[in-house]
Amino acid sequence: MSQQHLDSLRAIVGETHVLCGADAVPFESDYRSVFHGRSLCVARPANTRDVSAVTAYCYANDLPVVPQGGNTSLLGGSVPDDTGTSVILSLARLNRVRALDPTNATMTLDAGVTLNQARATAEKAGALFPLRIGSEGSCQIGGNLSTNAGGTAVLRYGNMRDLVLGLEVVLPDGRIWNGLRGLRKDNAGYDLKHLFIGTEGTLGIITAAVLKLFPVPRSVSSAFLGLRTPEDVLAVFNLIRQRLGTDVTAFELISSDAMSLVLSHLAGQASPLADTHPWYVLVETSSNADQADAEAQLLAALSDAMELGHVTDAVMASNARQAAEFWMIREEISDAQTKARGSVRCDISVPLSSIPGFIHETTAKVLSIAPKARMIVYGHIGDGNVHFNPLRPDETSADEFLATHGNHIASVIDHAASELDGSISAEHGIGVAKRDELTSVRSREELEIAWAIKRALDPFNLLNPGKVLPTLSN
Amino acid sequence: MSQQHLDSLRAIVGETHVLCGADAVPFESDYRSVFHGRSLCVARPANTRDVSAVTAYCYANDLPVVPQGGNTSLLGGSVPDDTGTSVILSLARLNRVRALDPTNATMTLDAGVTLNQARATAEKAGALFPLRIGSEGSCQIGGNLSTNAGGTAVLRYGNMRDLVLGLEVVLPDGRIWNGLRGLRKDNAGYDLKHLFIGTEGTLGIITAAVLKLFPVPRSVSSAFLGLRTPEDVLAVFNLIRQRLGTDVTAFELISSDAMSLVLSHLAGQASPLADTHPWYVLVETSSNADQADAEAQLLAALSDAMELGHVTDAVMASNARQAAEFWMIREEISDAQTKARGSVRCDISVPLSSIPGFIHETTAKVLSIAPKARMIVYGHIGDGNVHFNPLRPDETSADEFLATHGNHIASVIDHAASELDGSISAEHGIGVAKRDELTSVRSREELEIAWAIKRALDPFNLLNPGKVLPTLSN
Repeated sequence: MSQQHLDSLRAIVGETHVLCGADAVPFESDYRSVFHGRSLCVARPANTRDVSAVTAYCYANDLPVVPQGGNTSLLGGSVPDDTGTSVILSLARLNRVRALDPTNATMTLDAGVTLNQARATAEKAGALFPLRIGSEGSCQIGGNLSTNAGGTAVLRYGNMRDLVLGLEVVLPDGRIWNGLRGLRKDNAGYDLKHLFIGTEGTLGIITAAVLKLFPVPRSVSSAFLGLRTPEDVLAVFNLIRQRLGTDVTAFELISSDAMSLVLSHLAGQASPLADTHPWYVLVETSSNADQADAEAQLLAALSDAMELGHVTDAVMASNARQAAEFWMIREEISDAQTKARGSVRCDISVPLSSIPGFIHETTAKVLSIAPKARMIVYGHIGDGNVHFNPLRPDETSADEFLATHGNHIASVIDHAASELDGSISAEHGIGVAKRDELTSVRSREELEIAWAIKRALDPFNLLNPGKVLPTLSN
Repeated sequence: MSQQHLDSLRAIVGETHVLCGADAVPFESDYRSVFHGRSLCVARPANTRDVSAVTAYCYANDLPVVPQGGNTSLLGGSVPDDTGTSVILSLARLNRVRALDPTNATMTLDAGVTLNQARATAEKAGALFPLRIGSEGSCQIGGNLSTNAGGTAVLRYGNMRDLVLGLEVVLPDGRIWNGLRGLRKDNAGYDLKHLFIGTEGTLGIITAAVLKLFPVPRSVSSAFLGLRTPEDVLAVFNLIRQRLGTDVTAFELISSDAMSLVLSHLAGQASPLADTHPWYVLVETSSNADQADAEAQLLAALSDAMELGHVTDAVMASNARQAAEFWMIREEISDAQTKARGSVRCDISVPLSSIPGFIHETTAKVLSIAPKARMIVYGHIGDGNVHFNPLRPDETSADEFLATHGNHIASVIDHAASELDGSISAEHGIGVAKRDELTSVRSREELEIAWAIKRALDPFNLLNPGKVLPTLSN
C-alpha cells in the first residue's frame, strides 16, 4: 500500500522529488532538533498545480499532509507526528518571483521564496519589504504567513498579516483558491485570506502571496540606551513614541543578564556603553527627514528622557556599521542561549501598561523557584512582546535545570502573562508544543469556534493534524 | 405566536425597548430610503448579556436576527427582508466607553458608540483614532467593524480591520466570545476576530472592541492640486509617496464634473484654484516635523512635480480653516450627488498601476452609453479606490436616466474593475445590493469556502440572512 502511494506521488511530482528513508530524515525534525517525527515520505512539488494534485491524492487516500517551509518553527509546527503515515509537503521548490509591480507597490511571490530573497527582490525594485526575523536566511514566505511572523519592525510596519494583500491557497481537498489580488481596499465578501494567515497550515496550504512594498525611508537612526528599571523603559518608549510617532521602527529590550551572555558569546564585541546597566534598549527610527535632522530629533527626545531621569546613558550610532553592531548584539541573543543550553523559552505578550508589573513579578516568581537562574529577558518591548527565557546557572547542567524546573518555570511565566490578559505566544505560534496549553488560556467558546472552522474546511482532519488545536473534552 | 415572541423579547430587554409597527418603521429602511423591509419588531438591548439573551431566544425560535448599528449602509446591509419575520437588533444602547489605556494606546468601546464619539474619546486622552468616513456622526463602531470601513485616512492608518486588537462577539446561538484582548502581537491559536470583521453581521454580532490609539501628529499639511490627466495624478502620488513615505495620509481625487457639481451645491464656496482643471487632488500629510518644516517638505515635492509637468497649479492650505475648506469640497460631493439625484454609484478598486487605464476606458464606455452623462469620479486614489458615479445630464430626469442606463452603466464599471483584477466593492461592502453580482466576480471555490464558514457558525442561516452570500447553483 505504501509503495502504491509512493508510486502515485512520484507520478505527480517526479521520481526524484519523493524522498523516503534517510533522505526524508532532515525533514522529520525541526532545525533545532527538538521535535522529531516520522513520515511516509517527503513530496516536493514544483508548482501550485502539483501541490494541488498531491493534496488531492492524499485527501482521497486518507493520508495526513504536513506542509513545510523553511522548517524553522520553534514549536514543532512543521514536523510530522510519529505514526509514519504523513506526507511532508515541502514548498521549497515553489520559489519564483511571479510579479513585481512598483507602481502598485506589490510583489507576487511563490510560498517557497525565502524571506531574504523577498527582501532582496523588493530592494532591487527600489522598495522595502520590512519583515525582519532571525531566521530570514532560511524561513520562507509561506511559513511567515502561516505563522503570522513578527520580529523587529512590527512597531512601524505590523506583523506579516499586515504585509499581505492576497493569497493563493490549496485547500485540504486539493482545490485551489486564487485570491491573488493586489488591492488596498476590497470589501467584496468575506476576506478569506485571514483564514489561512496564522493558522499554521491547518486550513490550507499557502502557495503564493501578493505582498506590500514600502518606500525606503530616507534615513534610519539608531541608539543604544542604558536604563535602571522596566518603568523607565516604558516611560522612554512612551516619550519617544509621542515625539516621533510611527517613525519608531524598533524598540528592543535587553536585560543585564542577556547582555553579559551575548557579549561572552560574541568574543571581542564590546558593549556600546561604558558601564553596565540593569536594562538596555536598542531604538531605531525611520524617517523622511535627512539623516542629520532625523538624528537630531531622536537625540532631542533622548536628551529629554535623560533629563527626566529615565535614561542613564545613551549612544547614537554614528554610522551604519555601528548600527549593525548594535543589532548584532540584539540578534545574537537567541544563538547565545542555544549555545549556552538550558534556557526555558517563553514568548509572551501583555498590554504595554502591564509590562513593568509583569517583569517584576515574574522575575521574583522565577527566582523563588530557581534562585540562581540568569534572567535572559529581551524582545520587542514596544509591541508588549517579551522573550522571557530564564537560563540555568553556570553550575547546573542544562538537563538537570530543565528536568527540575523547566515546566514549572514555563507555566509560571505563561500563567502570569495570561493573568494580565496577555498571550502565551506573541509571535512563535502554537505548533504542537503549546497546543494543549491553549485549553487553559482560551475560552471554551474560542476553541469551539476554531474547531468549527477547522471541520468546515478540513472535515477529515488531514491537514497538519495535531497542530494548534487542542482536543476538547466533552 | 408573534405576540408570544414580543412578550418574551420584552421580558429580556424591557417593555419600552421592543418597538413594533410605526415605531419600527425607521429601522426598516436605510437612511437614504433606498432599501425597505419589514420586521417582527426592533429589540434594543442595553448590554452584551441582553444581546446574548435576545439572540439565543431567536435561535431557539427560528427567528432571523438583523443586527443594526447606525443604519448608514449604502447597500442595504442592515435592512431586513420583506417577510416581517426578522428581529432587528439595534446596538444603539450599547454606548459605553468601557476602558481607556493611554499607555497601551487602546480604548475599549461598546459597539454602539458612534465614530464621532470614538474620535472624541481618543482626543480627550491626547491620542488619535484615525478612521474618517462621511457618516461619522451616526455610524457606529460595530458597523464600522462589520463592514471594515475605509475612508480618507487609509493610506497612513489602514482600514478598520487594521485599527482593532480585540472583539467581543455574540454568536448566532447566543454564546458570547470574549476576545477583548489589547495585544499588538498574539499568535496563540486562530485569530478569530477576522471572522467577524467585514462579514456584515452574518457570522456574529460584535458587541465591543479594543481599538488602537495613535499619537497625534505634530503637524498636518494640506494642498489642493490641479492636474491634466489620470497619468499625472498617479505620477504625483508616486513622487509624493516616494518622498514623504507613510506621512502621506490622504490623496483624494476629484474630477472636473465632480468639482462643478459640489461647487454649485456649496453655494458661495469658491474653488481653491483660480482656473478649472480636468482633475483635482487633495493631498494631506501628517508629520513629526514642525508645521513649517513639514509644509516645506510637501511644497518641495509639489514643486518638483510641477517642474516635471505633472501638476498644473497648486495651493497649500495656509491654516486649519483653509484645510477644512479643502475637505468640505471633497466631503460634500456625496451629498451633492444625492441632492442632484440620478447617479449610478460604484465603489471600485483596482491596482494603482491600472488606475489611468481604468479611468480612460471606463469613461469612454460610459459615454458611449450615455454621451451626456456627467462623470462624477472621485475617491481615495492612493488606495486605488475610485467612486465612479456617472450622473444624469441636466435635461434627463433621474428616474429616466436610471431606468434607461442604471444597470447597464453599473455593470460596465464593475466589469471593467474585475477585468483589471479589481474589486466591485472597495469599501462599501456587499449587503443585499451587490450580493448576486458576487457570483460573476468571485470564483466558485471562494464562495464555497465562505458558505462553509457561514454554515459552520450559523447552521440555520438566522444571522442577517440574505446578506453578502449569494445563493450558489448546484
